[in-house]
Amino acid sequence: MRILLTNDDGIGAPGIQALWRALSNIGQVTVVAPDAERSATSQAITVHQPIRVDEYCITEPKLCAWRVGGTPTDCVKIAVEELLPAKPDIVVSGINLGPNLGTDVLYSGTVSAAIEGALYGIPAIAVSLDTWQNGDFSIAAGFAAKLAQTVVQKKLPPNTLLNVNVPAVAADQISGVAVTKLGVRQYANTFERRQDPRGRQYYWMGGQIVENDNDADTDIVAIKNKQISVTPIHFDLTNYGLMNMLSDWQLN
Amino acid sequence: MRILLTNDDGIGAPGIQALWRALSNIGQVTVVAPDAERSATSQAITVHQPIRVDEYCITEPKLCAWRVGGTPTDCVKIAVEELLPAKPDIVVSGINLGPNLGTDVLYSGTVSAAIEGALYGIPAIAVSLDTWQNGDFSIAAGFAAKLAQTVVQKKLPPNTLLNVNVPAVAADQISGVAVTKLGVRQYANTFERRQDPRGRQYYWMGGQIVENDNDADTDIVAIKNKQISVTPIHFDLTNYGLMNMLSDWQLN
Repeated sequence: MRILLTNDDGIGAPGIQALWRALSNIGQVTVVAPDAERSATSQAITVHQPIRVDEYCITEPKLCAWRVGGTPTDCVKIAVEELLPAKPDIVVSGINLGPNLGTDVLYSGTVSAAIEGALYGIPAIAVSLDTWQNGDFSIAAGFAAKLAQTVVQKKLPPNTLLNVNVPAVAADQISGVAVTKLGVRQYANTFERRQDPRGRQYYWMGGQIVENDNDADTDIVAIKNKQISVTPIHFDLTNYGLMNMLSDWQLN
Repeated sequence: MRILLTNDDGIGAPGIQALWRALSNIGQVTVVAPDAERSATSQAITVHQPIRVDEYCITEPKLCAWRVGGTPTDCVKIAVEELLPAKPDIVVSGINLGPNLGTDVLYSGTVSAAIEGALYGIPAIAVSLDTWQNGDFSIAAGFAAKLAQTVVQKKLPPNTLLNVNVPAVAADQISGVAVTKLGVRQYANTFERRQDPRGRQYYWMGGQIVENDNDADTDIVAIKNKQISVTPIHFDLTNYGLMNMLSDWQLN
């Protein structure tokens, strides 16, 4: 089983290294990951500047990888098109430090890397841990490795991937796995206005999560209930239901 | 009619300036656009560094705008949350120099800005011209202004936007407007390997479009037939059809 592993927190992040070690137990892992943090880069690609690729190794055990001066989606593209001898059996992206839930997946580099895998016809999963600080990635890594095996064995339909979010709690606190739909995530007070040391104004994007009324079967509610959330994701953005209505608009 | 206008080619690009002038004839336009080119940034947001905003004016007629050191999606966010006195009636993004067709919309900053508008509950359209060089934006700008009026008058369902691509031909060469679905766009030879002046290797992402068998009702075929393509877009990435299948996988 040949596994392509990437992330958006950068190749030095603890999340990818935990997953790297866990996946090495079940298959042949090639890591191709960004050289630095590329959080919230969505499905951005680098087309207006060169992309550097070099080797990067970790120890205990010694594992070597490709470090890319680009986005998560760049990493999947360059892995499939240049670096790997053959298409991998699965693309795994993560483990992200921080959840990727609901409408926030639109901004997620982690999820977008998995989408890119699916665009190449490769089964893919994205994995995130529901904490912003010092997570223990072991449960998420173990679940991801098991799920990767299941996905390769059972197959996914074309143009589909799985988005996994894992609660940041001890193993005995997790109340099972829920198959979910994406919820809605909104933020209040998104921008903070500040002054730099020279008196010039700037903004910093932040914001507090607004508690939406999300359905019981959403990823957001599952994580609140300390369940591992698995959401099947597609990326066909056509709103077919609206095509007839628009045809009546007589746009000609 | 209050219009928020943005793009991903940057505020100095001819495409947005043509649209700015055209939209000024039909409503009160506020331009909030990136300070430089942000092509292919998808729905990336700037969360790990500050965002600068300053004033930017053009002449004949004199029009002033907000110039943002961020992505197209940042522009829509900061416009709605900080810069505008009230939600606009419509978000218009473009005119992009280059088409945004088929699966390529996943990478598009132009389309993502319109998605961000729809996330705020604002009707939105993205407009692109099917040429990479020195386009004549007048036809696209005229069509976009007419469409913006129609959208505000007829309304769009929630969580929906329109993706418009305009052929780069003279007005009498355009064979009408087609309501389309997204096609599939693939590239061959995506990466060129090169050496820098110091002998170090780098990659540049490029690639030639592969001719896919796209259905007759896709945006890609419409543009080939010199039609203006209008595709209704949604952004609910849940694959509902797969939820039952996954429940049978017994992931617990």
